[in-house]
Amino acid sequence: MAEFMTETEQRSPAVPRPGAAGERRGRTGGAGALAEHPGQPTGRHPDGRLEAQEAAALLERTRALVDPELRTALESLPGSLRRIALYHFGWQRADGSPATGNAGKAIRPALVLAAADALGGPAARTAAVRAAVAVELVHNFTLLHDDVMDRDTSRRHRPTAWTVFGDADAILAGDALQALALRLLAEDPHPAARRAAARLAKCVVELCAGQHTDTDMEGRAPDEVTLDEALAMAEAKTGALLGCACALGALYAGAGAEEVAALDGFGRQAGLAFQLIDDVIGIWGDPRRTGKPAGADLAARKKSLPVVAALSSGTEAAAELAELYGKPFVSGDAEAVARTALAVERAGGRDWAQAEAADRMARAVQELSRAVPGPEAAGGLLALAEFVTRRSG
Amino acid sequence: MAEFMTETEQRSPAVPRPGAAGERRGRTGGAGALAEHPGQPTGRHPDGRLEAQEAAALLERTRALVDPELRTALESLPGSLRRIALYHFGWQRADGSPATGNAGKAIRPALVLAAADALGGPAARTAAVRAAVAVELVHNFTLLHDDVMDRDTSRRHRPTAWTVFGDADAILAGDALQALALRLLAEDPHPAARRAAARLAKCVVELCAGQHTDTDMEGRAPDEVTLDEALAMAEAKTGALLGCACALGALYAGAGAEEVAALDGFGRQAGLAFQLIDDVIGIWGDPRRTGKPAGADLAARKKSLPVVAALSSGTEAAAELAELYGKPFVSGDAEAVARTALAVERAGGRDWAQAEAADRMARAVQELSRAVPGPEAAGGLLALAEFVTRRSG
Repeated sequence: MAEFMTETEQRSPAVPRPGAAGERRGRTGGAGALAEHPGQPTGRHPDGRLEAQEAAALLERTRALVDPELRTALESLPGSLRRIALYHFGWQRADGSPATGNAGKAIRPALVLAAADALGGPAARTAAVRAAVAVELVHNFTLLHDDVMDRDTSRRHRPTAWTVFGDADAILAGDALQALALRLLAEDPHPAARRAAARLAKCVVELCAGQHTDTDMEGRAPDEVTLDEALAMAEAKTGALLGCACALGALYAGAGAEEVAALDGFGRQAGLAFQLIDDVIGIWGDPRRTGKPAGADLAARKKSLPVVAALSSGTEAAAELAELYGKPFVSGDAEAVARTALAVERAGGRDWAQAEAADRMARAVQELSRAVPGPEAAGGLLALAEFVTRRSG
Repeated sequence: MAEFMTETEQRSPAVPRPGAAGERRGRTGGAGALAEHPGQPTGRHPDGRLEAQEAAALLERTRALVDPELRTALESLPGSLRRIALYHFGWQRADGSPATGNAGKAIRPALVLAAADALGGPAARTAAVRAAVAVELVHNFTLLHDDVMDRDTSRRHRPTAWTVFGDADAILAGDALQALALRLLAEDPHPAARRAAARLAKCVVELCAGQHTDTDMEGRAPDEVTLDEALAMAEAKTGALLGCACALGALYAGAGAEEVAALDGFGRQAGLAFQLIDDVIGIWGDPRRTGKPAGADLAARKKSLPVVAALSSGTEAAAELAELYGKPFVSGDAEAVARTALAVERAGGRDWAQAEAADRMARAVQELSRAVPGPEAAGGLLALAEFVTRRSG
């Protein structure tokens, strides 16, 4: 989840790169339009631009709906914690003066509202705003804590809360945001609120388990991490909350258990697709776009999905990669980064990740079609899924 | 809250010390038997032994009722988090082998059940078990996090979770326990569960604010902390969850808003009384009983309530104390500890704390009598309040 919202990237609105992605199509034989054209838009909007506009409009509308409730929730915190929270969201500077910073793209609340809309129309969407706020609070609680654990110093172009206020305050603010989230749902008279709260709380446990596996994996030797494990970690850490967001929207639309499960599956698979693409960008992304040095993830010896796939490929390049990853990175050694990236690519890590992302998006679309057969109703959710996975590294 | 459950003390079952406490009685003119006999039992059981027995029986019965549900909740955690949680509760060793360690005295769940019983009888008590488990989970979530923040290395005679598993895992296990607590209530079909969840989540925010103030106060100069602030901190950090525990029991008994508020007030005031006594013991307690070196709190320059009261007394001794507190403690300097303790005492810090504790217990009893007029029904709650505040340092 940390990765998902690093948000140091300046994403451009969807200019597809047919070549780069097209070369790798079909390797996993995934179903659906997206598997055929990984990194490309669905059939609905051949050039992807309309979908990107739709996603942008959805996100903007989400912020407009969610922000007032979110701010009210944060303002309810006691002064000391409020300050840390408002700083984290970019609404106050460290000195407490007002700011209009980047509070994140609100992907998760947008998924809640789009899911509610898809299954229950505008009335359900309106009713689900509180659930959308709760999901965003949970997401930000995990960001505050993950940053402490991972010693990340920058988020949303600002110094992370723990670097400004110290570990203790960042931990406490995170704790308070989790409590606020579950309080919002406990106070929501909507008939779906209780099940939504139970589901969100269950999801928090999964997020924690995912973060646990992530920090644990980082401490292990490269050859001690299996691909299944890395995928399970990504699903818990990134997929679970996206799935939960969609499931909550479905609950607020009065959907049945099967539809809720399908929406959860849609979000999870889209989340995995996102993580795969994000990992590819972490290695081969354009530093001008990502805001990070080229191959930053490799320099940090991160066991991202393409790397783990490469390491477990049994190829000669895998052995070379294992050797490179066994040694600490010498700061500034661009040649070593390039050699490492090449080893991942030669071992099939890049191809695998892109094909797997396409496959996951295909599965996401399939899950969605189980609950929302009509393309019109599914449009918002598809646009959001496309938005998070279509990134021109 | 950290203090409340340090639990390194070997408490003896209620041997009152009439002399020590009796000297200070009546200073605040508090109402009720407890104000007249601070540190002494209520009028119901003149020698206090019966009440201590009653409390011990209540706590034992609570563990028997709560532990199965608590363990089931912990067993539902994913393996990695389960291990940390079971270690924290003393039910597993660090290597994962079973243990029969000290899981704490279960004061808070006992308060939930006693409050439910007082207002709704045995049926309400049985119905409130899940709420009792939720409160205990929240308490332990805060312990896990507080230990990380305060760098405390020992709890319940065992190394703290962060010293064994690292900061990240202790933070994640705490996060998961909070989520488990609120999930339990969200999944509880009892009509009071929703209000209980909202109240517990609100309490978590107060606990976080209390811990924030505590860590903040520790970083300030001794003369920059006011007594009001220190009392407010103690109420938020210790009183809030004891009040919430009682309020949840009242909710599960179907009590009205006024009764719930009175029970909350009872728990809060008893919690403050406890903290005051605990702070007195932290300075003048017998090391053989407390398990800590004499004056450990003074050596650590802790701004405990008697110290803050002494510092703000405007006396000559206060000035001396401020000077002593301004310098770091030289390890092993028993003479300096004794001199500091004497300064606190001469500045009135000890007298004040004991009188204030008596006053708070009197207020607790008053609050209780608003909701539970009959001494028979109130007996369990009174016994528990006496138990936590009657400590022979």
